[in-house]
Amino acid sequence: MERNRALELVKVQLTDKRYAHTLGVMETAVMLAKRYGADVEKAELAAIFHDYAKFRSKEEMKQILIDEQEDVRLLGFHHELWHAPAGAVLVRKEAGVNDEEVLSAIRWHTTGRPGMTLLEKIVYLADYIEPGRRFPGVDDVRTIAEQNLNDAVLAAVKNSILFLMGKKQPVFPVTMDTYNDFIQNGDDG
Amino acid sequence: MERNRALELVKVQLTDKRYAHTLGVMETAVMLAKRYGADVEKAELAAIFHDYAKFRSKEEMKQILIDEQEDVRLLGFHHELWHAPAGAVLVRKEAGVNDEEVLSAIRWHTTGRPGMTLLEKIVYLADYIEPGRRFPGVDDVRTIAEQNLNDAVLAAVKNSILFLMGKKQPVFPVTMDTYNDFIQNGDDG
Repeated sequence: MERNRALELVKVQLTDKRYAHTLGVMETAVMLAKRYGADVEKAELAAIFHDYAKFRSKEEMKQILIDEQEDVRLLGFHHELWHAPAGAVLVRKEAGVNDEEVLSAIRWHTTGRPGMTLLEKIVYLADYIEPGRRFPGVDDVRTIAEQNLNDAVLAAVKNSILFLMGKKQPVFPVTMDTYNDFIQNGDDG
Repeated sequence: MERNRALELVKVQLTDKRYAHTLGVMETAVMLAKRYGADVEKAELAAIFHDYAKFRSKEEMKQILIDEQEDVRLLGFHHELWHAPAGAVLVRKEAGVNDEEVLSAIRWHTTGRPGMTLLEKIVYLADYIEPGRRFPGVDDVRTIAEQNLNDAVLAAVKNSILFLMGKKQPVFPVTMDTYNDFIQNGDDG
């Protein structure tokens, strides 16, 4: 799909602020794809669509997770985790994107997963470090992202876990599985 | 089982240092059981036997985990995690302890688990705060343990996770499940 067409489809789904974030993720994902030898067009497309479902209702997202037999544990966790898997489903259905690599990068952009693909890592990381992001630790991850993709994704995953624990929030098990996968297997996936 | 008989059985399994730790856990578990209304004799017995398998060989522990169909994920994690479930099996087999509450307090004393019983919490916490323990954060947990058992166990679980992550070590998923259980359900189990 052509970039401007994709952006048009996404813009109407998002607030201005979230659309600006999406443009930041797009630029960052393209940069990272070039740096780490991923398919630049796929990285761009996944980044554009990564938050497609962000403003859908909880009810709609929940129904999609149930209908599509997504990980049932998601329903016991914050609905912030639902827009990524629901988004992958809606982007296929409504925007006609059928590329599985692109869809899986959308699906796993919030939690990560063990054995992340190159494209999944790039979209996950781009979402974390795009220029509009401001939170403790983000500059460290930006610096690491200039050197080593796996180290940067691991740092982002680790920061996310520590951030949640610091706020006495639960941590989705797949995020901890992702951390363990990088620690135990280096995740060369 | 009478306390001195249990101590005799355990002493020969342990180094002097680990036996001294066991005595500390025993005293602490008895104190906590009185404070929080648990069965004092069961708490004492579980504490005495909690590290029974600590010095068994990796090979023996591994075989027990396989034979007893324990959580297969354990085999992919550090063998430090094996002595608790292997210990529960050996304490039944070799020491003739058949009390399921006591055995489950031994089984879960390292990782915790979602829905911990009162006795499991007491042994887990006693192992963490017995007087011989010296590590960052332990005094905070000791203080919390004077007020609220669940808060103290949660603090210990959280510290353990942060400690492992600080050392770039993997975190066993059941430990994160335990943290999430306390956060999401308050764990009144």
